Amino acid sequence: MSTAPVAISVGEPAGIGPDILLQWVAAHRPAAPLLAYADADLLRARAGQLGLAVTLTDAPSDRQGRLGVRHTPLAAPVRPGQLDPANAGYVLHCLGQAADDCIAGRAAALVTGPVHKGVINDAGIAFSGHTEFLAARAGVAHVVMMLATAKLRVALVTTHLPLRAVPDAITPGWLSDCIRILARDLVDKFAIPQPRILVLGLNPHAGEGGHLGREEIEVIEPVLAALRREGMQLSGPLPADTAFTPRHLAACDAVLAMYHDQGLPVLKFQGFGEAVNITLGLPYVRTSVDHGTALDLAGSGRAETGSLNAALACASDLIRRRPHV
Amino acid sequence: MSTAPVAISVGEPAGIGPDILLQWVAAHRPAAPLLAYADADLLRARAGQLGLAVTLTDAPSDRQGRLGVRHTPLAAPVRPGQLDPANAGYVLHCLGQAADDCIAGRAAALVTGPVHKGVINDAGIAFSGHTEFLAARAGVAHVVMMLATAKLRVALVTTHLPLRAVPDAITPGWLSDCIRILARDLVDKFAIPQPRILVLGLNPHAGEGGHLGREEIEVIEPVLAALRREGMQLSGPLPADTAFTPRHLAACDAVLAMYHDQGLPVLKFQGFGEAVNITLGLPYVRTSVDHGTALDLAGSGRAETGSLNAALACASDLIRRRPHV
Repeated sequence: MSTAPVAISVGEPAGIGPDILLQWVAAHRPAAPLLAYADADLLRARAGQLGLAVTLTDAPSDRQGRLGVRHTPLAAPVRPGQLDPANAGYVLHCLGQAADDCIAGRAAALVTGPVHKGVINDAGIAFSGHTEFLAARAGVAHVVMMLATAKLRVALVTTHLPLRAVPDAITPGWLSDCIRILARDLVDKFAIPQPRILVLGLNPHAGEGGHLGREEIEVIEPVLAALRREGMQLSGPLPADTAFTPRHLAACDAVLAMYHDQGLPVLKFQGFGEAVNITLGLPYVRTSVDHGTALDLAGSGRAETGSLNAALACASDLIRRRPHV
Repeated sequence: MSTAPVAISVGEPAGIGPDILLQWVAAHRPAAPLLAYADADLLRARAGQLGLAVTLTDAPSDRQGRLGVRHTPLAAPVRPGQLDPANAGYVLHCLGQAADDCIAGRAAALVTGPVHKGVINDAGIAFSGHTEFLAARAGVAHVVMMLATAKLRVALVTTHLPLRAVPDAITPGWLSDCIRILARDLVDKFAIPQPRILVLGLNPHAGEGGHLGREEIEVIEPVLAALRREGMQLSGPLPADTAFTPRHLAACDAVLAMYHDQGLPVLKFQGFGEAVNITLGLPYVRTSVDHGTALDLAGSGRAETGSLNAALACASDLIRRRPHV
């Protein structure tokens, strides 16, 4: 098993990113050594404010109450809850360092805390989100968002698009790339040798033979047929409302939904509070908390660590599974 | 409490409609007297084929093993599994009789078995579905489809439309009508005096302040604001992926989804095999089985009665609740 640490980008310093990491470390023994990318003085001050006994170290640590920190100094002092564009560069520098350590193999996985897109853009830095940043940093053109719980994995062909832009965004090339990335990562990261993927239709009743839309016939079915000829195990396109039932779910390793609100309501209903966001297609494991910066809770001690706990557990589980580590 | 019977339209005679009703009556004592609208000889023959001891009577019956039948003769003999357009008129005649008895108050509720749209259209009769037929028969312009389980109620603003047609179908007038019908039926049929309705957004993250679509700002929010001024208790528009979580669900009596695959996957996941389709906006209670004619199972004894059981239980429950009966 790898001894490389799990890298944690703590994210927006005025938000609950520091809080949840410190609270978690104070209460848990990590399954793998952790290394946080942040300002050590910020973490020390926040721990004091929260009354948490956490010792910061230079080296990664897998002991409860100890946290390894790769120190990067803040550009400006932080008050919990108060965004400051002056620290936007700091946030991205920490994230970039953590990503680079994963790419270089110095870290085994990346767990990201919440950033605040608005304040980064206010600082004059174009930033559309973690996923795009990490893809560009790793030099990959296409990544796929998956949300997972202990019982269900749902990947998305399209993510944060207006609903009316969804049908035209699902091109044969894009869909084919998504399925390839999903299949490859189910093999490489989830250690499932022959993954079975259940693909949803775009339209209600998966188009009902063309009566409720033709994208299944014109786009989805031809792509699935071509990939099946390469040996992939794909079922569908299936109607979304009957796909999430025991018989179908038992026969697949992941569901591929065509768009955000087709796949995520059922995932988050099933695994309330434990859903983990996993970015597929990166050359390393990346999981993320499933919440924002919650500025109003920063420094209060009332932030919940459940999502971070799930993201850390998922990252640890995936790096344990990797056949080549 | 009403002594008017629950009317059951048995549906396509070559499908499993007769089977499931006979199987159910052989095994259960109804909560309310039942009256089936069908050919009595067909039911007698199918009972014989299935080896079921069911006595057919002219009058409604609430006894196990007895079934009241409003007899309408078939136009042509039926072989299970073999569609025949000659019987399309019979199917619609039975359905129309049952609907008319509900409208006139001679029946307390309508439970519909599965029909086969294709064979009705093949017979030269324009028929787009039960819902449209029943709305026209009752002279109402707009009905709303709800699916319900014991724990969750989801109504839909749009139903069987291609996904790309959904955004433009959600006009202020239509949305407003949907909410009024839903609210009125929650009062009148579900006996909830002050119903609380959770309205979903159209776009992912409910548009995220306009960044992911403007329909929430331009259509949904103004409609909700206007109806709130009339005293309705409406929350939203909320993101679909976080709406189906305990805190939000505990604070509402029904969820209004903008489209089919936004609301139904989670409903059917939650209440697998027990979801009931309820038509809101009709002047009577109508519930329906949630499956088709399953021609290959007709006469086999292998058809499942779970959905009919749920539809009958729901209809009985709703007529018990009605304050004015």
